[in-house]
Amino acid sequence: MTGLDGTAGVSAASHSLDRPCTLRDVPLWSVETEVIVVGFGAAGASAAIEAARAGARVILFEATSGNGGTSALSGGEIYLGGGGGTPIQRAAGFEDRTEDLYSYLLMAGGPNADEEKVRLYADNSLAHYEWLTAQGVEYKNSYIAERTIEPSTDDCLIWSGSEEAWPFMDEARPAPRGHCPKFIGMGGGRYVMDVLARRVVELGVDTRYDHRAVALVTDDAHRVHGLVLRAGNETVFARAGKGVVLCTGGFVMNRDMVRRHVPWLLRSNFPIGTVDDGSGIRLGISAGGAAINMAEGFVTLPWYPPGSLVKGIFVNGRGQRFVNEDCYHGRVSQFILQQPGDRIWLLADAASYQPMEFQELSRVEIGAAGESWQEVERELGLPEGSLVATVELYNRNATRGEDPLFHKAARWLAPLDKPPFVALDCRIDHCFYSSFTLGGLDTLPSGEVLTEEHTAVPGLYAAGRTACGLPRWGPGYSSGMSLADATFFGRLAGFSAARL
Amino acid sequence: MTGLDGTAGVSAASHSLDRPCTLRDVPLWSVETEVIVVGFGAAGASAAIEAARAGARVILFEATSGNGGTSALSGGEIYLGGGGGTPIQRAAGFEDRTEDLYSYLLMAGGPNADEEKVRLYADNSLAHYEWLTAQGVEYKNSYIAERTIEPSTDDCLIWSGSEEAWPFMDEARPAPRGHCPKFIGMGGGRYVMDVLARRVVELGVDTRYDHRAVALVTDDAHRVHGLVLRAGNETVFARAGKGVVLCTGGFVMNRDMVRRHVPWLLRSNFPIGTVDDGSGIRLGISAGGAAINMAEGFVTLPWYPPGSLVKGIFVNGRGQRFVNEDCYHGRVSQFILQQPGDRIWLLADAASYQPMEFQELSRVEIGAAGESWQEVERELGLPEGSLVATVELYNRNATRGEDPLFHKAARWLAPLDKPPFVALDCRIDHCFYSSFTLGGLDTLPSGEVLTEEHTAVPGLYAAGRTACGLPRWGPGYSSGMSLADATFFGRLAGFSAARL
Repeated sequence: MTGLDGTAGVSAASHSLDRPCTLRDVPLWSVETEVIVVGFGAAGASAAIEAARAGARVILFEATSGNGGTSALSGGEIYLGGGGGTPIQRAAGFEDRTEDLYSYLLMAGGPNADEEKVRLYADNSLAHYEWLTAQGVEYKNSYIAERTIEPSTDDCLIWSGSEEAWPFMDEARPAPRGHCPKFIGMGGGRYVMDVLARRVVELGVDTRYDHRAVALVTDDAHRVHGLVLRAGNETVFARAGKGVVLCTGGFVMNRDMVRRHVPWLLRSNFPIGTVDDGSGIRLGISAGGAAINMAEGFVTLPWYPPGSLVKGIFVNGRGQRFVNEDCYHGRVSQFILQQPGDRIWLLADAASYQPMEFQELSRVEIGAAGESWQEVERELGLPEGSLVATVELYNRNATRGEDPLFHKAARWLAPLDKPPFVALDCRIDHCFYSSFTLGGLDTLPSGEVLTEEHTAVPGLYAAGRTACGLPRWGPGYSSGMSLADATFFGRLAGFSAARL
Repeated sequence: MTGLDGTAGVSAASHSLDRPCTLRDVPLWSVETEVIVVGFGAAGASAAIEAARAGARVILFEATSGNGGTSALSGGEIYLGGGGGTPIQRAAGFEDRTEDLYSYLLMAGGPNADEEKVRLYADNSLAHYEWLTAQGVEYKNSYIAERTIEPSTDDCLIWSGSEEAWPFMDEARPAPRGHCPKFIGMGGGRYVMDVLARRVVELGVDTRYDHRAVALVTDDAHRVHGLVLRAGNETVFARAGKGVVLCTGGFVMNRDMVRRHVPWLLRSNFPIGTVDDGSGIRLGISAGGAAINMAEGFVTLPWYPPGSLVKGIFVNGRGQRFVNEDCYHGRVSQFILQQPGDRIWLLADAASYQPMEFQELSRVEIGAAGESWQEVERELGLPEGSLVATVELYNRNATRGEDPLFHKAARWLAPLDKPPFVALDCRIDHCFYSSFTLGGLDTLPSGEVLTEEHTAVPGLYAAGRTACGLPRWGPGYSSGMSLADATFFGRLAGFSAARL
């Protein structure tokens, strides 16, 4: 019936991410275990750790030759708080309440937020901080008050979202919640992954690299029994007695899927991903799982620091303002992408203008400059009076310390009236707008994958960007939400699978 | 192994739209035919007609007790043209070129338009007109030049899209293309469906009502062999030797699916649908089909006629304009939904204001009135100067016959300077914004359902709103596109399945 290469029955080429292999067509299990985790990023590592700690035999398959996935590309910040504050929040004077964390995350999740996941995370965020430190992730007890995207030092606590900005500040008492690991320089995600990967090995998880999942194995009752993988020329049939946990990231690198599901995200020219080919999501769908929120994504232009630029105003190609500029750079960028056309400018005057910290990376250039806003308007080719009317209205209110239209906070309000004036060219197709996807498999907080009818697919779990978790709405995204979601719900998925 | 009620093996209750029933679990085929069509709306009727005409034995299953589906709720207009014009277009003086129809439909399809389908439809639209008349659909040779949504007379040709409006007019020479059937009063969709249903019967199609599809039947190679249906208490296993064509409409009535896939559409309070429960889309996914464009939808407020209101301007809760008001009501409405907050007003002066034709239906009321725009601004509670600046800029340009910011055509431009002034309250959560979904299964023009890898699922076809066809982008939707798509690609799907 089959050779040891396991290619009889159904040929390897015929396996598909979009249709499961039936149990009947498995010629011989190449390997058997209890829990299989697919993908060695933060979600997969956390799932493997908790499955192993719960006593299960675990294999972790990774498609590439190394661990880390897209998590390792990140700054490593994790969104934590509530319960009176983490030790670092408390030391910085923030007694972060659980209800504020809850309200913030619920609002940040957008119209489709998952209340159950938000609740569970808010209630257990402090304990999750303890778990992270218990795994070996170190945090310096320090706080940066200034606007930053990611510290270049080893400092910890930063404002990483829109906590102090309208409308979030009306719903939840603000606190800084971005916890960056004790790692000098940017790119702390690699450090966090090194710590988690070390734990994975310590706990005896069988890790296998260069194994690419190509199909799930299900029986006629739709229970998931394992996976078909490709390793070089070999087809591997791997049995999971308890469950399969999909943690292969999102789909931002699968440009065809992006085109079909999030076409607007193609306007951002810097996808952030490693594999992120949508394979986990497709495997889940093939077993009956529902993919939700597939048209949502995150996009950002790192236009601050310096904070002084927050005193500028963004206008679209019609000279209209469209957002309070003091919210998180990702929220501003999401509104930028919603504007008609592709012309976007950040207007500043002599008092507010300073070069951007990431000016070279951002590819933001000065689009026009002048001694009056009339001159800038003309130079930008905007219809007479359009930009000038916008600036006049803004200045009139800013002088009074008010922004009745967009609600930028008073500390960022100053009339833009000190010449020379500049318009920074933030064109979408030219500047550094990075992006990733926020759609994925619908799951219970336990990681169980749900069908469109809200029933669980037996034996199948998902976490990280393969699932649809806490971050699911670009305008609400805050730095650290993805790693928070991936590590916390990755843990739950691994634990749930092991306890089956 | 089974009784005649066919409930052994897998119990009826265990069948799922989200997972196929394997061929092995079919105890006995209750009925066998060559082509099965699911859903008796315009797509299903057209598919059944062409499958029967191609010589296949056909069963058409319908979940409800009558035919028509959501197509019968429509005005019955069909978007037709090109090739020098339909006889009715030509009589009205429009030599509609195929390339203009093509360019318009391609732009109307939005960033994710299906070039192949648009090409095929543009090239064959005139022939499709002939087909419709050959089936018995009658058209009066008449043209209505004025802005209308749907004639209350039996007149035929209307402007049913944004053909004359920016930016469409720059891409395609405008022509009216909405063809309404010869039927006195609104609701010509029922008439069109009566004609098609008569043809279905004449051609000997076996039509079965009150049969609800609950699962597809597939083999281990993922070929579709038939369907499991429920009829009263009975489970029916229906075999399709050649193919199954899914034409069950979209998913706007499945509010849970809307919440998960198009949450923004929940803001419209009048879903247009009959069954439209997403069952066809889910059946397709269960067999490996890819659902695409799931976050797109159509929404509209019938705010004109009278055409004079087009001379008004829409503003959002910040007093900003956001669209050229001379485009199709659905496009305007789509932009309305993209505005922050839920406050939307249509501003008019004494010269442009007249009550709306559908004022009562629309639930649009006068939100404020005054002798000056300052007064209106105050009454609406808008920040001082915000609305006034918008109107001043608009009026200044309109006086010169220009709209440099939004490009409303000159015929609709006049300064809003004749008091009294009014602001019509077009609030989203209060007024009649109707909606339906535009996401569905990815298909070839032949109707073959595609996987995420662009391979066809053997034996499975889809058409109408179960598939993703010509209409797939709210801002480009034009009346008549859905019925054009459903009838034309319904025909192709039925024909393709029969010719297998």
